[in-house]
Amino acid sequence: MTDTIDRTAHIDEIDAQLRALFAVERVRATAYGEHYTALWETLEQASSGGKRIRPTLVRLAYFALGGRNTGAVDQVAVAFELLHTAFVIHDDVIDHDTRRRGQPNIAGAFADRGRRLGVDEAGSDAWGEAAAVLAGDLALSLSHRTIARLDVGADIRLPLLDILDRSVFVSAAGELADVAYAILGDRPVIDRVLSTLEQKTAVYSVEAPLQAGAVLAGADTRQIEALGRFGRLAGVAFQLADDILGVFGEENELGKSTIADLREGKRTALMAFAATTDAWARIEPLLGSASLDEAGADEIRAALRESGALSATVELAREHVTLAVFEIESSDLPRDLVSALTDFARSAVERTR
Amino acid sequence: MTDTIDRTAHIDEIDAQLRALFAVERVRATAYGEHYTALWETLEQASSGGKRIRPTLVRLAYFALGGRNTGAVDQVAVAFELLHTAFVIHDDVIDHDTRRRGQPNIAGAFADRGRRLGVDEAGSDAWGEAAAVLAGDLALSLSHRTIARLDVGADIRLPLLDILDRSVFVSAAGELADVAYAILGDRPVIDRVLSTLEQKTAVYSVEAPLQAGAVLAGADTRQIEALGRFGRLAGVAFQLADDILGVFGEENELGKSTIADLREGKRTALMAFAATTDAWARIEPLLGSASLDEAGADEIRAALRESGALSATVELAREHVTLAVFEIESSDLPRDLVSALTDFARSAVERTR
Repeated sequence: MTDTIDRTAHIDEIDAQLRALFAVERVRATAYGEHYTALWETLEQASSGGKRIRPTLVRLAYFALGGRNTGAVDQVAVAFELLHTAFVIHDDVIDHDTRRRGQPNIAGAFADRGRRLGVDEAGSDAWGEAAAVLAGDLALSLSHRTIARLDVGADIRLPLLDILDRSVFVSAAGELADVAYAILGDRPVIDRVLSTLEQKTAVYSVEAPLQAGAVLAGADTRQIEALGRFGRLAGVAFQLADDILGVFGEENELGKSTIADLREGKRTALMAFAATTDAWARIEPLLGSASLDEAGADEIRAALRESGALSATVELAREHVTLAVFEIESSDLPRDLVSALTDFARSAVERTR
Repeated sequence: MTDTIDRTAHIDEIDAQLRALFAVERVRATAYGEHYTALWETLEQASSGGKRIRPTLVRLAYFALGGRNTGAVDQVAVAFELLHTAFVIHDDVIDHDTRRRGQPNIAGAFADRGRRLGVDEAGSDAWGEAAAVLAGDLALSLSHRTIARLDVGADIRLPLLDILDRSVFVSAAGELADVAYAILGDRPVIDRVLSTLEQKTAVYSVEAPLQAGAVLAGADTRQIEALGRFGRLAGVAFQLADDILGVFGEENELGKSTIADLREGKRTALMAFAATTDAWARIEPLLGSASLDEAGADEIRAALRESGALSATVELAREHVTLAVFEIESSDLPRDLVSALTDFARSAVERTR
């Protein structure tokens, strides 16, 4: 997100809504003891500190399309941030990650809690995992609840529920495909990489928030469809840029390691392009090794550069941005929305974190 | 559930509704490849074969209280069965179980799938766990969606959403407390055991389904509250009986091992009573050992019998049934509902599986 979108106002509002929601839940939790209260505190932390891309997109589409019910859009915006929180938490369970953005995540925080209470390593780790499974379920349930409780007619509520349903259904498909891809060790192929990105991230992160904002504002079908096409393409561009940054970014700016994706053997577009060149013979033996060191990672990075895989991926991300922008420019969406979304899509390939 | 409730008609209807729902989702899943289709098939299997206690209670309360909208009650009944499916699946993730009712569960089925595709043990297990996390999220989302889409007024939908919300909130608290109890290795105390049972099982299994059926039928507040009090007491009785069967039941009838709870070190009422007697010195060194053998299990069983812990737990379950029945007999609930629920509560302590 660049500053051409007034991020600050959106983010402040979303943060305030989430704080209010978690304040209520934390008080409720106190009736169930200190561990449950701690779980809700940890869940609130897990939902904070992000870029708030999804709720910002909900609000952007809603207000640009003439929506004026700030209470309703706040709820929908919050629902998409909570959905993201839930997916991130369960993604970490699946990957057995205990840190995120340089801090202990929920599993990490509860494992630390166990160790402070004198529990052994295995017990502490099991407690951490249990806490993360439950916290993800709570965030997912809150997301559903927030949409279901909206005070709008069935003509709005049912399409919103369909968008939420599609977000969950398609993201789960993408996550399963992603895990299967790495585990089965299949040679990465660009079409399959792109469809996995679209399913796992683009639909719930860009397509669905924009469409939800538009539906709530009473937009017509053609506008909603144009936002959907834009969202899938821009969402894929974002994720391609993410995968590039995950290997070539500055760790200080990213706040995460640029070796983790390589150790995990993640099937990215970078790898799909490299797999069509001689460089694959250099990369494949190193990729997915848990003991990959910095020298090995540099070797992979050099092979990705020299083979042209890096520049092909950058180019592919730019093409997605161009196509995404074309979809909205050729629509009858309001010009200020087109302009804001164009900036958003372009920021995807220009960002450094 | 005894046969005095006409189980068959309820169960056939619930099974038919679930089959119809999963048929639609399986077709949707085919667009996302064979693994995702298999995940939905496995999820459907996970939701089948149970006793359908929760949806039966929804229907029982609804029809006895004068409800006549079979479409709506079917949806609410299905939502509670799906909620149960989701909790069971994520409970298995938390416990690292790969079998349920003598069959591979979702994690087990996907790990087998990985091995058949030539994936190593660690990769297959990781895939199984990922599949179970995602399947639980899908079942949980379906449960929420089913209530949210009900074609009823806000005066009914909002209280139903509150009941669903409480089910998730309190069950997660109970599950976290249960895990913490076993991991921290605290000496079991009966009050804490009972509150954990109530939170983890009684609320979502008995209280909430009965109240949801009643709310949907337009019952008054006093009736709904009486059903809530009955539900918590009867639900605890059911779970006390479950814990007894889990150690003293016939494995053939139960379809599960009667040593697993002992190896896990589960903090049940049996253990809480034993912990107040000299028998605890015999039990404690054996309880929670992963290598506990049949001789050790028999030693624990003998200590539980001889110390009076078994008979105290049986008595406690019976007292809960008596109190539960008192709550509905002293209410103005319809007599046929009181009679059916009395049979239901009594069956809790008489069953063998």
